[in-house]
Amino acid sequence: MVPNLTTALAGPLLALEQRFLDQTTAIERWFRCAWQDHTPPFYASVDLRNAGYKLAPVDTNLFPGGFNNLNPAFYPLCIQAIQTAIEKYCPDARNMLLIPENHTRNQFYLKNVATLAGVLRQAGLTVRLGSVSPEITAPVTLELDDGQSLHLEPLQLNNGRWGVVGFDPCMVLLNNDLSAGVPDILQSPTGQTLIPPAHAGWHVRRKSQHFAAYDRVATDFAALVGIDSWRINPYFATCEDINFHERVGEDCLAARVDELLNRIRAKYREYDINADPYVVVKADAGTYGMGVMTVRDASEVIGLNRKQRNKMSVIKEGMEVSSVIIQEGVPTLETIRDAVAEPVVYMIDRFVVGGFYRVHEARGPEENLNAPGMHFEPLAFETGCNLPDYSANPDSPPNRFYAYGVIARLALMAASFELEAADPFRT
Amino acid sequence: MVPNLTTALAGPLLALEQRFLDQTTAIERWFRCAWQDHTPPFYASVDLRNAGYKLAPVDTNLFPGGFNNLNPAFYPLCIQAIQTAIEKYCPDARNMLLIPENHTRNQFYLKNVATLAGVLRQAGLTVRLGSVSPEITAPVTLELDDGQSLHLEPLQLNNGRWGVVGFDPCMVLLNNDLSAGVPDILQSPTGQTLIPPAHAGWHVRRKSQHFAAYDRVATDFAALVGIDSWRINPYFATCEDINFHERVGEDCLAARVDELLNRIRAKYREYDINADPYVVVKADAGTYGMGVMTVRDASEVIGLNRKQRNKMSVIKEGMEVSSVIIQEGVPTLETIRDAVAEPVVYMIDRFVVGGFYRVHEARGPEENLNAPGMHFEPLAFETGCNLPDYSANPDSPPNRFYAYGVIARLALMAASFELEAADPFRT
Repeated sequence: MVPNLTTALAGPLLALEQRFLDQTTAIERWFRCAWQDHTPPFYASVDLRNAGYKLAPVDTNLFPGGFNNLNPAFYPLCIQAIQTAIEKYCPDARNMLLIPENHTRNQFYLKNVATLAGVLRQAGLTVRLGSVSPEITAPVTLELDDGQSLHLEPLQLNNGRWGVVGFDPCMVLLNNDLSAGVPDILQSPTGQTLIPPAHAGWHVRRKSQHFAAYDRVATDFAALVGIDSWRINPYFATCEDINFHERVGEDCLAARVDELLNRIRAKYREYDINADPYVVVKADAGTYGMGVMTVRDASEVIGLNRKQRNKMSVIKEGMEVSSVIIQEGVPTLETIRDAVAEPVVYMIDRFVVGGFYRVHEARGPEENLNAPGMHFEPLAFETGCNLPDYSANPDSPPNRFYAYGVIARLALMAASFELEAADPFRT
Repeated sequence: MVPNLTTALAGPLLALEQRFLDQTTAIERWFRCAWQDHTPPFYASVDLRNAGYKLAPVDTNLFPGGFNNLNPAFYPLCIQAIQTAIEKYCPDARNMLLIPENHTRNQFYLKNVATLAGVLRQAGLTVRLGSVSPEITAPVTLELDDGQSLHLEPLQLNNGRWGVVGFDPCMVLLNNDLSAGVPDILQSPTGQTLIPPAHAGWHVRRKSQHFAAYDRVATDFAALVGIDSWRINPYFATCEDINFHERVGEDCLAARVDELLNRIRAKYREYDINADPYVVVKADAGTYGMGVMTVRDASEVIGLNRKQRNKMSVIKEGMEVSSVIIQEGVPTLETIRDAVAEPVVYMIDRFVVGGFYRVHEARGPEENLNAPGMHFEPLAFETGCNLPDYSANPDSPPNRFYAYGVIARLALMAASFELEAADPFRT
């Protein structure tokens, strides 16, 4: 990759950036006031797509991997943000248990765990790794190909509290998205703080609920800064009671796809956008880029062949797909040396702590850059997302990154609303 | 200067650094718990001296200048810390008024104001500068020699609220140390938040009160990490009712100097330190390095000549010195290419946000590096102070900087105790 490149500047985003730059005071105040009433998730990453005429989130991850892809220059920001967050959950904490995903053979993921554990330690916590994988029945040390190693121990209950041998944590941090449901051992509360809460897992979460919450956030925010909320918000619709194997729900899907394409076409006309609209059909509970399909015409979802149906039916941990979200396709116009680039923004508590570009040479601007088996090159953001430069061009790197950070924080706010609504103990 | 140098590593500090590194969890937890009960000042800078056998604060500034000397790579940390702090003072703030010092012809100071105003703006505030200088009776634009400019307006009362024309701030940030007392216009409360509070000004503050508070903090902290608190705490004594012009109080001063030198000698013997102890006599309310004298023997303070008496009598704003603090001299053993270097650490809210070395080629290791008319070269810290590296040598740059940050935060905690005790509205 190009180490001295700071941003994938090829795509235009001037109008939005200018608007944000003119209104940083109002924007930051709006976030500050909103966080008085709502609690941000402990951490999150947001995939953005920048179409030039539009900058929008397309996915929000509450169990972010990829911390190893951030610029190490941002670790101090991560550490400071973690320190702020801990005060909220467990101010007198010494110990934190980190529960990683079960796939322990993915070197990229293991490096993420090592980086995350590293900044948590630098923030002043003693961190150990507790696994919920049925394969981890005894402590094991995993060697990483960069020379680091990870010591993984089976999560266990000690006197009714989560821990590993000789270790009683105040906080348990999930970096496991619970796609297969909440493991038995995590089912009953122990008095320890589980972050994010279990109801943030993909066994409960639905993309459609997230984007419904994002609708509200984007509408409010667009009114504040005086823009059409469509500029920052992808249209979406849902279909429930889908069964791709049984060909149940095809008509509903086709109707919604058609409806959505028409709404997008109207917007394209309104803004003189000379492009073919498309939508992306995604498993509503899906993650890891599984169960995703790009569609340009309703007819494409009728009579899917066996391969397509299989692809759409099954998501992570072999879960069956029963409902989908149909989301307006936002092409990414950002490129780095002719390769398509998609920004991913990382947040801890209410702070943007860095990000990177997913750069993929073999993919087109309308394709999903986070797909199974797909190899992307991460390109870390070179500068911070909280450094608006009033004296520079609105399209200069710091202002571009600031715009990313604003939209990512809107998605973070939506996640906060979403978790509040899903909270089983909500009063 | 040496741009790629990261730390003035020449002085040894291994034992303390190792101790801190081994106990980061306990240390960070201790700070986190303490900040639950105490409010840190909005900002502060702390001058440290590293004698190898000892790392200690020698001065704590609650109206820090020198933000322009920080590494710009740290601005994101400043911005994030400011955002955290604002939530405490005025979460729905749009506007902040910054009150600078009155000396508007000092280019170094003006650059500090420009940098500070810059990061406050990036944190999402609309910032204007209100001057309390009698010379500023109309708006004036000051040109800086680096091409920036500052727009200064006279502070005024608008409907009983502090502001400048057409600007009603929620917060008023003092970067003026009030050495000459609180200006009339700031005397009566307006309902706006004045930070730091007026009782943090040098018209009220006494170094001896700060170091008395630091004694308590250092004693607690030393017990936590298992060290002799003298390792991080300079001995001190005070003399009141001093009048250098009239030669009143010389005997008291000589007695205290003698006493203090004997206490230091005993410690030097205990730790096999082969050096001549010395003390520094400073005006108790002094700042800007004025009214400071290095003394190696009690006899030196008896029969001062006219020049010496004049030097010790008057501090900033022409205030008369009436009491002094006698502080254990901590030689600085840190050097950069044979020049003596003293670390200065900057904090916003409870976070260390950067620092720099004062580097002075013409001064000795036992001299005051912050003196009137003195020119020092600032050398920004290259890495953060919150990045302890457990895999590196305890004396490696990140661990050295972490140690600075720990001691600086102890001084910050002392300042918090000091301000609580001085609060006229304290219940």
